[in-house]
Amino acid sequence: MASMTTTTTTTLTDRFAHSVTPSALRSYLAEFISTFLFVFVAIGSTMSSRKLIADATSDPSCLVAIAIANAFALSSAVYISAGGHVNPAVTFGLAVGGHISIPTAIFYWIMQLAGSVTACLLLRVATAGHVIPTHAIAVEMTGFGASVLEGVLTFALVYTVYAAGDPRKGGSSLGGQAIGPIVIGFIAGGNVLAAGPFTGGSMNPACTFGSALISGSFKNQAVYWVGPLIGAGIAGLLYDNVVFPPQQSAADSSRGVDGLGVSVGF
Amino acid sequence: MASMTTTTTTTLTDRFAHSVTPSALRSYLAEFISTFLFVFVAIGSTMSSRKLIADATSDPSCLVAIAIANAFALSSAVYISAGGHVNPAVTFGLAVGGHISIPTAIFYWIMQLAGSVTACLLLRVATAGHVIPTHAIAVEMTGFGASVLEGVLTFALVYTVYAAGDPRKGGSSLGGQAIGPIVIGFIAGGNVLAAGPFTGGSMNPACTFGSALISGSFKNQAVYWVGPLIGAGIAGLLYDNVVFPPQQSAADSSRGVDGLGVSVGF
Amino acid sequence: MASMTTTTTTTLTDRFAHSVTPSALRSYLAEFISTFLFVFVAIGSTMSSRKLIADATSDPSCLVAIAIANAFALSSAVYISAGGHVNPAVTFGLAVGGHISIPTAIFYWIMQLAGSVTACLLLRVATAGHVIPTHAIAVEMTGFGASVLEGVLTFALVYTVYAAGDPRKGGSSLGGQAIGPIVIGFIAGGNVLAAGPFTGGSMNPACTFGSALISGSFKNQAVYWVGPLIGAGIAGLLYDNVVFPPQQSAADSSRGVDGLGVSVGF
Amino acid sequence: MASMTTTTTTTLTDRFAHSVTPSALRSYLAEFISTFLFVFVAIGSTMSSRKLIADATSDPSCLVAIAIANAFALSSAVYISAGGHVNPAVTFGLAVGGHISIPTAIFYWIMQLAGSVTACLLLRVATAGHVIPTHAIAVEMTGFGASVLEGVLTFALVYTVYAAGDPRKGGSSLGGQAIGPIVIGFIAGGNVLAAGPFTGGSMNPACTFGSALISGSFKNQAVYWVGPLIGAGIAGLLYDNVVFPPQQSAADSSRGVDGLGVSVGF
Repeated sequence: MASMTTTTTTTLTDRFAHSVTPSALRSYLAEFISTFLFVFVAIGSTMSSRKLIADATSDPSCLVAIAIANAFALSSAVYISAGGHVNPAVTFGLAVGGHISIPTAIFYWIMQLAGSVTACLLLRVATAGHVIPTHAIAVEMTGFGASVLEGVLTFALVYTVYAAGDPRKGGSSLGGQAIGPIVIGFIAGGNVLAAGPFTGGSMNPACTFGSALISGSFKNQAVYWVGPLIGAGIAGLLYDNVVFPPQQSAADSSRGVDGLGVSVGF
Repeated sequence: MASMTTTTTTTLTDRFAHSVTPSALRSYLAEFISTFLFVFVAIGSTMSSRKLIADATSDPSCLVAIAIANAFALSSAVYISAGGHVNPAVTFGLAVGGHISIPTAIFYWIMQLAGSVTACLLLRVATAGHVIPTHAIAVEMTGFGASVLEGVLTFALVYTVYAAGDPRKGGSSLGGQAIGPIVIGFIAGGNVLAAGPFTGGSMNPACTFGSALISGSFKNQAVYWVGPLIGAGIAGLLYDNVVFPPQQSAADSSRGVDGLGVSVGF
Repeated sequence: MASMTTTTTTTLTDRFAHSVTPSALRSYLAEFISTFLFVFVAIGSTMSSRKLIADATSDPSCLVAIAIANAFALSSAVYISAGGHVNPAVTFGLAVGGHISIPTAIFYWIMQLAGSVTACLLLRVATAGHVIPTHAIAVEMTGFGASVLEGVLTFALVYTVYAAGDPRKGGSSLGGQAIGPIVIGFIAGGNVLAAGPFTGGSMNPACTFGSALISGSFKNQAVYWVGPLIGAGIAGLLYDNVVFPPQQSAADSSRGVDGLGVSVGF
Repeated sequence: MASMTTTTTTTLTDRFAHSVTPSALRSYLAEFISTFLFVFVAIGSTMSSRKLIADATSDPSCLVAIAIANAFALSSAVYISAGGHVNPAVTFGLAVGGHISIPTAIFYWIMQLAGSVTACLLLRVATAGHVIPTHAIAVEMTGFGASVLEGVLTFALVYTVYAAGDPRKGGSSLGGQAIGPIVIGFIAGGNVLAAGPFTGGSMNPACTFGSALISGSFKNQAVYWVGPLIGAGIAGLLYDNVVFPPQQSAADSSRGVDGLGVSVGF
């Protein structure tokens, strides 16, 4: 809390200076590595599916493969970076909630986009020129519907990231880790299963941008930025200000209806 | 325990007043959000499967996809709400065990049903009018058999929720979270794999109601309320009064046969 | 340790008396419930697969479905019973290691077999007479080869149960739970994937017996008792006496090669 | 840290003597058991898939089965050995980072190779002569591309192992276990999904060597040693020296950008 107060009273120059300390540079590198590894597995699993079945987007086994790959890779990517964002929408949601300064957020975005582009480039080179798949919208859907769908999915993801980082939850009190990275991976995997055949279930503008850049096709790119960023922003505002506001005492927040007859911690 | 005693001596008005404090209202909103996100993924994954394969209910890959989506989404939904119910049957099971007051339970039910209906409505709108799938019973089964099956599945789910919320278990002693949300998701996923082709493996009257309302088909709705509610009630009574009664000391309950030669905590 | 010494000096009558205290009876009921729920999901998932595809034993999607069902259900079954055995082979392995007295082990076996038979019976009734599937050996395999395979799988399972219950590991020091139940479920699921098409990947004599009794076919039943019991016994002896003997200090056991240059706890 | 200093000042003879204490011998046996069980499940699941579908390498369901088997088995193998390596590349990565002495690393390699060969031999015998599958490279790929792919996958795995063993992370502060083994399994499973159809997604020279020896085909063996060892070495150097250098204080390392406005532990 002290740091947030400090942030608001410092000048932009000070904040920028804070964003280029050795410690901050290391966190940017960690963000690059995490996003690189996540995108490598997420896009790689789609390439694997397409190699097995040309029309992979209409096969439920491929959907399962891609969803599990997203879940497993995101869990690991969050875990290895000690709670990295791995996703510009997550960074945006945390910036909206005031948990990260704007200069730091910009550096995070740059590293996330660079990590994703590097992963897609390496996949293309290593596989001797296989096509890099991009997220696509089902023909019967509108861009608005697709944005809503991606927005809801990203809302779920960012809301879960907020819960995992909340020191009042079991999560952070056990060192900020506990099962948080696993649950963050699970919601990503569940979301891919829910929306894969409709929008691809990206939730991650960096992943969509990297694959679009390397494949050279930016069709519907806006959908994968507008929807996720709005969903992420709403998640941040709702979690911090409405559902779990900071003024709640720790004892109170562990059970919203404490004192109502709920006694064993359900 | 003190709060339970208080509950029994207060008037209905008092209890209702307790149910509309700011803290309680926040917990209702958390319940709405959790149920919304769970149903969004659970029903969304069924829609995704049907989009890929018209006759998705007879494809084992689709069964895997839907089961994993249920598991992942329920883990996340329980985690983000700090132990929310996400399911009217769970709320009923906890009310039967005296862990939640009747007015609070009613508010929870309302939020769960509203969350589920909202999720199904949004899915329909966002996918440009795709049909919302409903839970159905295999033709060779009777309504009674289906109720028994759904009842056993819900018994397993609610019994696991009880275990996850038991402060004498590893679960709550680590802040009420630990691996509880993961295991709750696992049993939901396992149950869908066990009964999906027979009854759909709902275990959740809110999920069944929401999809039925938006699709306009209430066939066999009773099965998905009677079975789960009875199963949940039995789970609550059995856990609290027979298997792990409150008078057991903490040391004793960690191993039921302590002092019998079981020495290393198996 | 004190309790183990006591056990060896008491008479059989005393030990039997210890096995019928209210606390012990509750642990038997917990064992019945856990085994019932595990077998309900494990056998139920096989029935679901066979309902979808008549020749389910030759479909890899069905193998995935059954393996995940085993993993998820066993995790939950172990979790809800605060570390129950859910498997006669596990009980045998713990009895061989001296962690449970013979009378208690016998009561556990009875409850496990009863739970499994009840689950199979209920599945048959609720599904209006669907055939209960039994574990079977691939035609090209010998009974000896199948026993070896089931023995190795059960060795892996029981060895993991030992590790999860070891208070010197992270597991029990966090209340006997931590991630133990999840890892126990994982090894069960992995084993089904490794051996499903060869022997069914049972590892659990109670599950095999229950389905055989209700379906009326005891073919190759011996394979599913001899292999698992020998594998379980070896696991118990090896873990306790060779790999992690009790005389190791806690600091030492956390890293077997402590003092060898391994410094960060890998 | 003290032990690392000691290591550098002792003679080779002293270090070898340290590598054959009873405690060290037990850790070698634990490594043998863990690698044996991992390879048994990893190779066994591929054999199961091939038994179901002759052309299993082109079926996405088989890819899912093998990936989940790898994830589940590696989680268990790491868990039961209290943080074993189960993989020569992991041992190499830790040796490069100075966390394990060269003589100990050599003993670990020997046990890993022996465990893998034993597992493949037992699988062949128990299944009455089924062919042991080996890792293979897609026809359109070059050996260099395959090495790069395996190198990146192994980098991800070893980097995750480093994070799981880092006492500054939530992992080790909870006894060195916490969710580390689960996340290590997840990244292995995700990697198989990403690269299975291209290189098999081995990441483990012991697993590749064991199956090659028993099947008698060492084609492309170099790819599965060069790529993983280089990837593992880079992971070790990068983690220890660049991203999370030892001089960082514990408070600092938990959040790389602490003091930058990040206040709730995200």
